[in-house]
Amino acid sequence: MNIESHVIEKGMLAKSASRIMSTIPTNIKNNALLSMADALISRKQEIYDANSLDMKEGKSNGLSASLLDRLLLTEDRIKSMSQGLKEVALLDDPIGEVVRMFTRPNGLQIGQVRVPLGVIGIIYEARPNVTVDAAAICIKAGSSVILKGGKEAFNSNMKIGEIISAAAEKAGLPKGCINLIETTEREAVNKIMTLNQYIDVLIPRGGAGLINAVVNNSTVPVIETGVGNCHVFVDESADFKNAIDIIINGKTQRPAVCNALETVLVHTAIAKDFLPLLYKSLCNNSVELRGCEKTLKILPQTIKAEESDWENEFLDLILAVKIVDSLDEAMEHIYKYGTKHSEAILTKDYNNSQRFLKEVDAAAVYINASTRFTDGSEFGFGAEIGISTQKLHARGPMGIKELTSSKYIIYGNGQIR
Amino acid sequence: MNIESHVIEKGMLAKSASRIMSTIPTNIKNNALLSMADALISRKQEIYDANSLDMKEGKSNGLSASLLDRLLLTEDRIKSMSQGLKEVALLDDPIGEVVRMFTRPNGLQIGQVRVPLGVIGIIYEARPNVTVDAAAICIKAGSSVILKGGKEAFNSNMKIGEIISAAAEKAGLPKGCINLIETTEREAVNKIMTLNQYIDVLIPRGGAGLINAVVNNSTVPVIETGVGNCHVFVDESADFKNAIDIIINGKTQRPAVCNALETVLVHTAIAKDFLPLLYKSLCNNSVELRGCEKTLKILPQTIKAEESDWENEFLDLILAVKIVDSLDEAMEHIYKYGTKHSEAILTKDYNNSQRFLKEVDAAAVYINASTRFTDGSEFGFGAEIGISTQKLHARGPMGIKELTSSKYIIYGNGQIR
Repeated sequence: MNIESHVIEKGMLAKSASRIMSTIPTNIKNNALLSMADALISRKQEIYDANSLDMKEGKSNGLSASLLDRLLLTEDRIKSMSQGLKEVALLDDPIGEVVRMFTRPNGLQIGQVRVPLGVIGIIYEARPNVTVDAAAICIKAGSSVILKGGKEAFNSNMKIGEIISAAAEKAGLPKGCINLIETTEREAVNKIMTLNQYIDVLIPRGGAGLINAVVNNSTVPVIETGVGNCHVFVDESADFKNAIDIIINGKTQRPAVCNALETVLVHTAIAKDFLPLLYKSLCNNSVELRGCEKTLKILPQTIKAEESDWENEFLDLILAVKIVDSLDEAMEHIYKYGTKHSEAILTKDYNNSQRFLKEVDAAAVYINASTRFTDGSEFGFGAEIGISTQKLHARGPMGIKELTSSKYIIYGNGQIR
Repeated sequence: MNIESHVIEKGMLAKSASRIMSTIPTNIKNNALLSMADALISRKQEIYDANSLDMKEGKSNGLSASLLDRLLLTEDRIKSMSQGLKEVALLDDPIGEVVRMFTRPNGLQIGQVRVPLGVIGIIYEARPNVTVDAAAICIKAGSSVILKGGKEAFNSNMKIGEIISAAAEKAGLPKGCINLIETTEREAVNKIMTLNQYIDVLIPRGGAGLINAVVNNSTVPVIETGVGNCHVFVDESADFKNAIDIIINGKTQRPAVCNALETVLVHTAIAKDFLPLLYKSLCNNSVELRGCEKTLKILPQTIKAEESDWENEFLDLILAVKIVDSLDEAMEHIYKYGTKHSEAILTKDYNNSQRFLKEVDAAAVYINASTRFTDGSEFGFGAEIGISTQKLHARGPMGIKELTSSKYIIYGNGQIR
């Protein structure tokens, strides 16, 4: 296979399908999503077979138990992918929504209308469910999609792609609305990143390495998702019980995700009273602590935090704790180490809450709530394609609306300048 | 001067100023803009002196008369730059606007608030007034700006930059909110394009060559502005008088700009009656015609259009004309040759007007009006930084609102997942 011409061919197919996709009625898109949901169930044996090839290869390549678990497709997981498609079918169609409309003094009526992006490229890592989720949300947003998944899930992805493409086409969507890159060669990713002629936006989903590689090498516009080094600042007026609940929730409910909590900043005025309580709860939840020097004086049994503990996501049951003298010091720490994802203040003080909201620069800034809420479905957006941590186009959870563009439509009756 | 460290220094200054800029009250921003306006007038002699150095160098380097004209700063032009600053001061401040706010079933109140982008880089060509316009709009949008102008205007830009920076700082804006790159070396542009650590978005303003170079080489997110190969389709039901007015306006009012008309598509059913009338008006306005083969049969005196005449902007008093058999053929031509900037249909037919609006993919799609209206001030946005022809972030005229980002603010009272 010539990789370059394979990718170009997929790009051309996607582009040409995107023209048709942009005017497809909502009910056809929804019916297609429901057909895709049914097809996953009725052809599940084929998925198991493909998946067991990947599992076998993964085992012989020595993949870790957690990676193998993410790769495995069980009946429940196939059902859940199928259910996800049905949920996207239920969401409102964003395409055609008139965002605003106004009349100019010369009588021109100008409206801004939501339109599809065109062709969306998704580059992702191991989990095969992304193939289904990403295809669903892109289709509902009126775009074609080009999917390049991780090599570990190659057989599963190819089979899933074949099944959902066939169902989509049979239900009236254009051939080429869903495209899978049929190779595991790295060269394909390089080609995708420069396919400006056919791809309108590229979204990398995965770890920091993948995201940075795409941001640095793509000439196609990129939406950056993901890395979340999230903080909670426990102000001196914070309610201790709330604070402990929120910290335990942020750290333990799902430690490996981007909106999980990584560092707690504690106001010095309450540190002596609060930290022992927090420590007890963390121990009960098997969370390891890494503390600043001042923390070590209160909790001598704690491990000393290194610079890298402030800088990086643990994505594990480990929490960094630092005592700060003021709100300003807390915000300075967040400015220095934060990744502009999700940041929270726990306080009863009105002025401090408002300063934190205003001055902290992140996709989501919280007063008295867990950072774990930075999520499309928690925000009420339905499905999401990721959390944008960049400032252009979309910031925060990206639902279907965030996967659209707009155009101006202008009604005139002969106006000239 | 070490170019790399010079650019990095400007980036650091801009980044650090942007933190302060993001919370500067509206009245201080407005006063600063008014002070900058006054300073341009009171220090105009210094500007003349710097400008005459550029003019002298430009002449000895053999710049064309039109380039020299764009470079020249007269009293009227300085007044007009000063007036522009005052107009930006009058515009509403977009920062802090709550775009939407809603309450979730768990009681979390989630708001989306407009916030500054941070640091905006502008790379532009000869005209020194861009230095003032771009600085004004970025400041009003709460961002710092890094300006890299064309080498022909180097002395003028440096002097203008010095004057407006000093006035801004004196009026209470942070040092480093306006930064000019103090070198004409190309290396500086290369460094700017990879300064992801300090620059949030890069906007190239200029010809297709500059824009493509930035799009292809920048790792900083880019907003693409500009190239406009705009079409008017004269449908068989079009009002002839309106059509001729709109075509003459689109082609002749300001032929060198991106929203100027480049190609007219005429429905075959009216070609024989309409084209001779159009031809007469075009001749009266010194417009040269390039016609398709069918056009040549009706207007034998016309020059035959080459493939490149459909592809490129003339940016001059030249118009391409093609006869098409149907709305579909017109839209196909636009799909093939258009640059997704501004496209218009002239028609009395309801269905055709609606199909054109819906199916043509461009930043601005018109019924019965001149493409020349694609402009920030014509849309009522006040000042603009350019016309975005890309689909991400902003599409069409980019006013101050389009130069902002947003963040989510979340009011909780102890919510956990």
